[in-house]
Amino acid sequence: MNKDIHTYKLHLTYDGTNYSGWQIQPHALSIQQIVQDAVRMLAKEDVNVIGSGRTDAGVHALDQVAHFRTHSSLDLDHFLRSMNGILPKDIRTKEAFDAPSTFHAQRSALGKEYHYRLSFGPYVSPFERYYVWHVHYKIDTKLLEEAAKLFIGTHDFSSFANSQTKGACAKNPIRTLSKLDIIPREGGLALQFAGNGFLYKMVRNIVGTLIEVASNKRPIDDIPRIFAATDRRVAPMAAPAQGLFLVKVFY
Amino acid sequence: MNKDIHTYKLHLTYDGTNYSGWQIQPHALSIQQIVQDAVRMLAKEDVNVIGSGRTDAGVHALDQVAHFRTHSSLDLDHFLRSMNGILPKDIRTKEAFDAPSTFHAQRSALGKEYHYRLSFGPYVSPFERYYVWHVHYKIDTKLLEEAAKLFIGTHDFSSFANSQTKGACAKNPIRTLSKLDIIPREGGLALQFAGNGFLYKMVRNIVGTLIEVASNKRPIDDIPRIFAATDRRVAPMAAPAQGLFLVKVFY
Repeated sequence: MNKDIHTYKLHLTYDGTNYSGWQIQPHALSIQQIVQDAVRMLAKEDVNVIGSGRTDAGVHALDQVAHFRTHSSLDLDHFLRSMNGILPKDIRTKEAFDAPSTFHAQRSALGKEYHYRLSFGPYVSPFERYYVWHVHYKIDTKLLEEAAKLFIGTHDFSSFANSQTKGACAKNPIRTLSKLDIIPREGGLALQFAGNGFLYKMVRNIVGTLIEVASNKRPIDDIPRIFAATDRRVAPMAAPAQGLFLVKVFY
Repeated sequence: MNKDIHTYKLHLTYDGTNYSGWQIQPHALSIQQIVQDAVRMLAKEDVNVIGSGRTDAGVHALDQVAHFRTHSSLDLDHFLRSMNGILPKDIRTKEAFDAPSTFHAQRSALGKEYHYRLSFGPYVSPFERYYVWHVHYKIDTKLLEEAAKLFIGTHDFSSFANSQTKGACAKNPIRTLSKLDIIPREGGLALQFAGNGFLYKMVRNIVGTLIEVASNKRPIDDIPRIFAATDRRVAPMAAPAQGLFLVKVFY
């Protein structure tokens, strides 16, 4: 035990299928709880593990970042192996680093990248059944591309934010979406989002709207109208959680 | 109902994780049973569904082929949709065809392709946890390539066949392996096997031997000695089921 306090940064990947989401909550199995329990076992004290942000039930992470502060000085190679020995196989610690004492997984984050996977075929591969949204409507790709462009840039995203948003997010709904790329993949495509911050359910709400427009259920002109309303109730349903992946947190 | 007998050919893909394998057996949940139950419901009679061959518990299929004969004349588009409505999401019917009355999924097969996925990294991605063999030993890729070449061609594969082989297979252990390619993939590689027929557990037994040699646990010169012994007991353990995929059946 060292009297100094150490800050450690973790990179995690998880399959969110079997969890209630990242965030600790009573009476539910969260990823944060499981990771924190493992860290406490190894740090031998009651540390708190803080993530870059929540991911909802069923949402996956290719690279979630978290930090914790502890009096224990950890051998990181040993820590990494031990974490992956303790954690269930649907949660893995990819890397662990010493971080500056000022590092905070959520507050230091400059931006994030999310991917949303869509499947358009007559059936979903068994190997993708928990990792895509199977869209049954006919999609006009040109229209999808046009609609996607309307989201890029700096906007008030209130209409695309669910109400569980709290703190700074609820007070400032202005976000900059720097990228919304449409990448073909077997049997469908991936929508790749990058931006300086995402409001609660923002990616899934945008995807829901994009699919309504690209399947001709709603005119593309509705998109500026939905933005202007700054009211979540005017926008379409959110896309399901299982197609969404947190891919990268930028610092 | 038509008095003629129709033969239908099915292409199936499945995640074998939750099943006891392809083949119907008492007191176990087999893929053949589940597919046959669905076909019987739609054909409205007691048809038998015959696969190109068995896959073991935990083995997956990207393209398994099966056939059945029925008095019912099926609308194949409707049949396909209904099958995927009835089947669990880890078993999908990819395609259904009218086939000549002489077609037999097992006896008409001219060859097969299997892939075996290996992961060498410090951890296995949560999304691959049921689909790779995580090999912890250090692998010499050059040695792996050299060893793989020794399996290509026509050999008596008795030493690489488990005893559950029955019928023609047990009587004739000569097989021709036309391809054994080593293809890099993220975090590991895939061993791609093609041949005119595979004995029981042959792919997994070959993979087990290749990994023993490539990790320097056994000299490469043992491979001709194992072939010559024509005795399963001299060869190393089989690789685990979960890395194995039936990829294609050739007719």
